[in-house]
Amino acid sequence: MATKLYEQVADEIIARIEGGYYTAGQKLPSIRVLAQEYGVSISTVQEAYRIIEERGYTEVRPKSGHFVKARNSAPVLPDVSPLPQRPVKVSAWSNILNMLNADEAENMLNLGWAIPDLKSPTLKPLTRDLNDINRRLGMRSLSYDYVRGNKALRRQIARLGVDSGLQLHPDDILVTSGCQEALSSSLRAITQPGDIVAVDSPFYFGAVQTIEASGLKAIEIPSHPETGTSLEALELAFAQWPIKVLVLTPTCNNPMGYSIPEAHRPKIIELCNQHDIILIEDDIYGDLSFQYPRPRSLKSYDTEGRVILCSSFSKTLAPGLRVGWVAPGRYLDEVLHMKYVSSISTPTVSQMAVAEYVSQGAYERHLRKMRENYQRGRDIMIELIQRYFPEGTRMTYPQGGFVIWVVMPKAINTTELNNRVKQFGISFAPGELFTTTKKYKNQMRLNYTNCPCLEVEEAIRTIGQISKEMLLEA
Amino acid sequence: MATKLYEQVADEIIARIEGGYYTAGQKLPSIRVLAQEYGVSISTVQEAYRIIEERGYTEVRPKSGHFVKARNSAPVLPDVSPLPQRPVKVSAWSNILNMLNADEAENMLNLGWAIPDLKSPTLKPLTRDLNDINRRLGMRSLSYDYVRGNKALRRQIARLGVDSGLQLHPDDILVTSGCQEALSSSLRAITQPGDIVAVDSPFYFGAVQTIEASGLKAIEIPSHPETGTSLEALELAFAQWPIKVLVLTPTCNNPMGYSIPEAHRPKIIELCNQHDIILIEDDIYGDLSFQYPRPRSLKSYDTEGRVILCSSFSKTLAPGLRVGWVAPGRYLDEVLHMKYVSSISTPTVSQMAVAEYVSQGAYERHLRKMRENYQRGRDIMIELIQRYFPEGTRMTYPQGGFVIWVVMPKAINTTELNNRVKQFGISFAPGELFTTTKKYKNQMRLNYTNCPCLEVEEAIRTIGQISKEMLLEA
Repeated sequence: MATKLYEQVADEIIARIEGGYYTAGQKLPSIRVLAQEYGVSISTVQEAYRIIEERGYTEVRPKSGHFVKARNSAPVLPDVSPLPQRPVKVSAWSNILNMLNADEAENMLNLGWAIPDLKSPTLKPLTRDLNDINRRLGMRSLSYDYVRGNKALRRQIARLGVDSGLQLHPDDILVTSGCQEALSSSLRAITQPGDIVAVDSPFYFGAVQTIEASGLKAIEIPSHPETGTSLEALELAFAQWPIKVLVLTPTCNNPMGYSIPEAHRPKIIELCNQHDIILIEDDIYGDLSFQYPRPRSLKSYDTEGRVILCSSFSKTLAPGLRVGWVAPGRYLDEVLHMKYVSSISTPTVSQMAVAEYVSQGAYERHLRKMRENYQRGRDIMIELIQRYFPEGTRMTYPQGGFVIWVVMPKAINTTELNNRVKQFGISFAPGELFTTTKKYKNQMRLNYTNCPCLEVEEAIRTIGQISKEMLLEA
Repeated sequence: MATKLYEQVADEIIARIEGGYYTAGQKLPSIRVLAQEYGVSISTVQEAYRIIEERGYTEVRPKSGHFVKARNSAPVLPDVSPLPQRPVKVSAWSNILNMLNADEAENMLNLGWAIPDLKSPTLKPLTRDLNDINRRLGMRSLSYDYVRGNKALRRQIARLGVDSGLQLHPDDILVTSGCQEALSSSLRAITQPGDIVAVDSPFYFGAVQTIEASGLKAIEIPSHPETGTSLEALELAFAQWPIKVLVLTPTCNNPMGYSIPEAHRPKIIELCNQHDIILIEDDIYGDLSFQYPRPRSLKSYDTEGRVILCSSFSKTLAPGLRVGWVAPGRYLDEVLHMKYVSSISTPTVSQMAVAEYVSQGAYERHLRKMRENYQRGRDIMIELIQRYFPEGTRMTYPQGGFVIWVVMPKAINTTELNNRVKQFGISFAPGELFTTTKKYKNQMRLNYTNCPCLEVEEAIRTIGQISKEMLLEA
């Protein structure tokens, strides 16, 4: 893709902001002035300003112009996660059970579940679509839809794929009950118990559990907090172990929030090709990238059909619908088989409502709004952590999505901390959930979906206070 | 349970009908006359007549009275299915794929899928509930429900369990995405690849596929077409092989339609206790038993928590909702784990709508209507098969549900027959789908959901004609 003129202009202005040429609070030159300076049209600068704003560098003050946004003091990033060990058997189910039980308690503020904002007015058309389709279908809504998934929905998913550089046919896609079914059906389709799976570390606990439940062994590849999966460690692990599958969340990673740089992406595919490794790409947060356009998916670099792309509308729209999908490449039949065994098909009305919502363009409008909200939420959450958590706390700087990874001082065991804050009606996801070993004992994942919000501020203050007490005890 | 007076009266009248004392088309004595004869109250006879009608022996002609229904000439039953062989690896996925593909073809009359009647007016309150809940919840409908399932729904399922002799607490129950997820999560929770699972034979192809997908071996226990699972064969198999799990569909069996006699049920549990075998009871058709009250579940005889009861509303209400459940006994945590890995949770609105529908009593009303319709459908389907299929065709006499098992003359390969009738826009489920071996080559499962219906009669006529042509070729 050749870079568009307005993107070049946007990049130059961003470089000026990042270089300190324009500083926080400063008004940017007017569109007319800049158009003259760069020798481009008014509309090109308008588009460039739109992009810069979308990426969070500026804000528009009505009738005044574009101003450089005050940025937080840069968060202190955590270290690269530890080196890979031997492949190990997985078990952290009791921690998840604890989280499930906390979830069922009344009046619990749960900062551990990654639940998106469900109060945005941009979701209203979706509930209207659900109502309309229910009424229109009447009793036809009660029947099975196709095992492969509703056809209109698969068309829309194929169309959306273009944004991440994909050229999918609707028949390349299977609809699943959320991304979890996409992941578990895919893993089961291509592995035998005992097989070794490489995963980015820390990694999503649903995937941890799937690996355990399928009798697989995991080898964890360290992640850099900004650039993600270490290519060197990946190459080393591929050379050293008979790895069958690699599972990555390269875009808006859960739990760390990084997006793997564009330049690393084809290299990962090359490595998989060389070592004949199947890649499962979890793209569930991909459309919530703060960068626009969003990064290309790893699958878009795949020419051998070895990438299985798993995703869903659970993070971008609504988890209660349970509408996910998988594009299994050359493993389509095998994954269809496992999906059939898992639950046969996905509810009819949910699928049709999402198809309708996407085809109206409401999904793109909603995404724009959510990217904006979550970016603001991230900045506020970072401020709160910096203000209330003990000295020495570090955190990631998420490039999308709505979760952040926090590294507390070594003396704080976050599982213990989580148990203590529960009596104040607060819970989060302790680091131990995100690994097959015990290595993230002083880490945690928080979601910033609901920032700004006094209740969340109060909760962060409480977690900070209790952890300071724990430090004094230590 | 002591037999009620009206049940005694009903039994005596039924005995008279079956003994030929009252014959087809004959008017039964008036309620008043019979009350005098038996020395009971008018209301007792009314209740007895209601039961007799419900069991399909009589019909009410308005303002005329109760008449003995014309019964079909008794269907010729198939033999007991063959003896068990060695445990074998399972594979029939390509046949299922064929069925899925046929399903996606336009204008195909599919007699192979077991889809219930979705046109009954007794379902209207369900679509109304869906609409109401969608409107009432608005955007709250978009959130996850509990991983264990909606609480109101679990209360209703526990209440319904009383009908099959169960005393369940809502916390004993997990909601799943249909019975398929209940089955696959249960099997995965309690087995390791290579384990041996005993199953009734022929058995539901979704279970066949689950066993294959989980890397298990199956040993098939022969079934009598009227009494089901052979106790002798079961005992023999338990003694001979290191069987881990037994999977049965004891009530309104799919595909044969039998219900295991009440007297055999505690014996099956005893055998499982003796050999320390876990029993998965698939009760998905149980509430559609033509006998009223319905047979007690096997689980109701279990005192050790070793029975995992799997069921759903997919056959009794609507498959498109994907609302099933499992009562896993002592394996609750393990099954919850697998259910979480499989798809996390079940859509919120479907669960709430079913809970509402059941709590209003609409479910029981719907069941009464469905039992009546399906019983009529069975009788018509048997007539059609007797009229159109080749001489020597045998079939089961289902005690509930809406599928029938047909045994054609040996020379007819039903997979081949199925391929031939597809060009006439008809498909059914060939026998090979229901076994791990090749033994049901001349058998098929048909559903009689839509009987009476000219299109179905035409389809049966066509299948019969093509199969007669195949016989001539043979």
